[in-house]
Amino acid sequence: MSQVSHTLAQRLLDGDRRALARAITLVESDDPAGWELVREIYPHTGNAAIIGLTGAPGAGKSTLIGALTKLRRAADRDVAVLSIDPSSPFTHGALLGDRIRLTDHFLDPGVFIRSMANRGALGGLSEAALQTALLMDAAGKDDVFLETVGVGQAEVDIIDHADTIVLVLMPGSGDSIQALKAGIMEIPDIIVVNKADHPLTDTMVREIRGVLSLAPQRGWRVPIVKTEASRGVGVEELVAKLDEHRAYIEAEGTLSERRRRNLRSEVVGLCTFRLRRRLEEQLDSDDTFAGLLDEVVERRLDPATAASRILERLDAAAASREE
Amino acid sequence: MSQVSHTLAQRLLDGDRRALARAITLVESDDPAGWELVREIYPHTGNAAIIGLTGAPGAGKSTLIGALTKLRRAADRDVAVLSIDPSSPFTHGALLGDRIRLTDHFLDPGVFIRSMANRGALGGLSEAALQTALLMDAAGKDDVFLETVGVGQAEVDIIDHADTIVLVLMPGSGDSIQALKAGIMEIPDIIVVNKADHPLTDTMVREIRGVLSLAPQRGWRVPIVKTEASRGVGVEELVAKLDEHRAYIEAEGTLSERRRRNLRSEVVGLCTFRLRRRLEEQLDSDDTFAGLLDEVVERRLDPATAASRILERLDAAAASREE
Repeated sequence: MSQVSHTLAQRLLDGDRRALARAITLVESDDPAGWELVREIYPHTGNAAIIGLTGAPGAGKSTLIGALTKLRRAADRDVAVLSIDPSSPFTHGALLGDRIRLTDHFLDPGVFIRSMANRGALGGLSEAALQTALLMDAAGKDDVFLETVGVGQAEVDIIDHADTIVLVLMPGSGDSIQALKAGIMEIPDIIVVNKADHPLTDTMVREIRGVLSLAPQRGWRVPIVKTEASRGVGVEELVAKLDEHRAYIEAEGTLSERRRRNLRSEVVGLCTFRLRRRLEEQLDSDDTFAGLLDEVVERRLDPATAASRILERLDAAAASREE
Repeated sequence: MSQVSHTLAQRLLDGDRRALARAITLVESDDPAGWELVREIYPHTGNAAIIGLTGAPGAGKSTLIGALTKLRRAADRDVAVLSIDPSSPFTHGALLGDRIRLTDHFLDPGVFIRSMANRGALGGLSEAALQTALLMDAAGKDDVFLETVGVGQAEVDIIDHADTIVLVLMPGSGDSIQALKAGIMEIPDIIVVNKADHPLTDTMVREIRGVLSLAPQRGWRVPIVKTEASRGVGVEELVAKLDEHRAYIEAEGTLSERRRRNLRSEVVGLCTFRLRRRLEEQLDSDDTFAGLLDEVVERRLDPATAASRILERLDAAAASREE
């Protein structure tokens, strides 16, 4: 292990913000030193409460996280926030408007905020995000908030790794409830109806109750919390529900079950990502592939047979690596 | 090639509905005879117009497809519909309510309708759906409508394979526009605002125009079509826009570009799916993996290192296959 990485790991474990920031950059840029670092700090993880917040853009997730952070800080807990930002193809930048709400906490050394763009991560977004959560955990954060817009497989993968999943809805926006009803979205642990000063709030709460009443009953009854995050209304109740859920999963043993399942899927996800990258590298460098693709386009060779031929070549390449 | 599959292929190419139904069942159940069949009929594909319709549940996609089918049949075109059904975890069945709209056409031999559930496809949903579209194409259908709710990677993969992508919105439901604005959803080729008798229709059209005006200008100007599918209003205009888009992509050469890109990603998708399945099989049968996972859960071995060890074992297994 290099001296640099050792020093960085030690500083990170001591809770040094700049070390944490540097470590995340290494992981995000897929630097081998980043993976080495995660390996080193991994035994010190598993202590933070990982809370995932998901919901459509505009539902007020960032404002809510700002309000939650304020209460968590008042209780002397250290907080980290990782926002997965849908970067706009129009502005070529991340949609950081909402992020402004978190600036109240920029100068607080007990709060660490980081954004990660969902474009340009070359398919490795969930890998980078999950490694980042481990780094935040190792740096001694008590609460790690993961924020996603909940669309796209990578984002679902990320949010699935949280200990507690919070779905944030706003009144008058029906798509999310339809998605819940249709079973496209899994039932979360807590549902928040934010912007609860809206006249359609109670209608939405009734609709959600209707959907939940159809769901198979498990031990945990999913609470619906009404909030106005921008004024702090209802946020104390949300904190209470987060604590209740944590106590519940710890008592029932579901926390360790969940973590085992999540770690399994993280390992499988990492394997799949690397296999796919290896495949893409071979395709880019292999003229045979371009020839196969031409045959497919000309309808002379079907896609499945082309795939079989490519996998045979990959196996041969693996065999030569083994020799 | 077996005699059975030969006969089935011939009957399918002759446009026999029962042969088409049987062929899709083979593909859906991942039967080797299904892959063999696709290989055989593949040279006869590439003639159908593949039209993808996506949008939130409840936007009226099925009703719209019913209305489009009526007009296409009046113009003596053969139609196939493949609906990717979000199956509800509550009712354990597919949400077939909307499908009723298509029953008008059940007795018409020129219309073929099929649903495919998005659960239980074991990760192979997009593979099965794309092979099904090829079968419908080979069976001589002039128009193949693919319908998805547009959430989830598999569904995005499916819709990306269409020649023309139609986004169906309904007034008063803001999530989809937010998703468009945030760049989570790619800009489609045609946008439909269905249920256009709703008072918020024009507000929504203005919002969509606003989003589109920010998008980088390409050659094709995305039209916004207002429809009331249940009364057939606006559907003729939609058909005209579908034809215009087809003429445009054929004239500009983008149809063949699109198809090349789509076939490439289909081949890559098939390879990745098989690599992942091979991985899962190995994990299920290999006690070493359970041991590695225990170490990860106990925080003694980090997920990335566990993934590396698994890939080394996979390579060794591939090498022994090659010998």
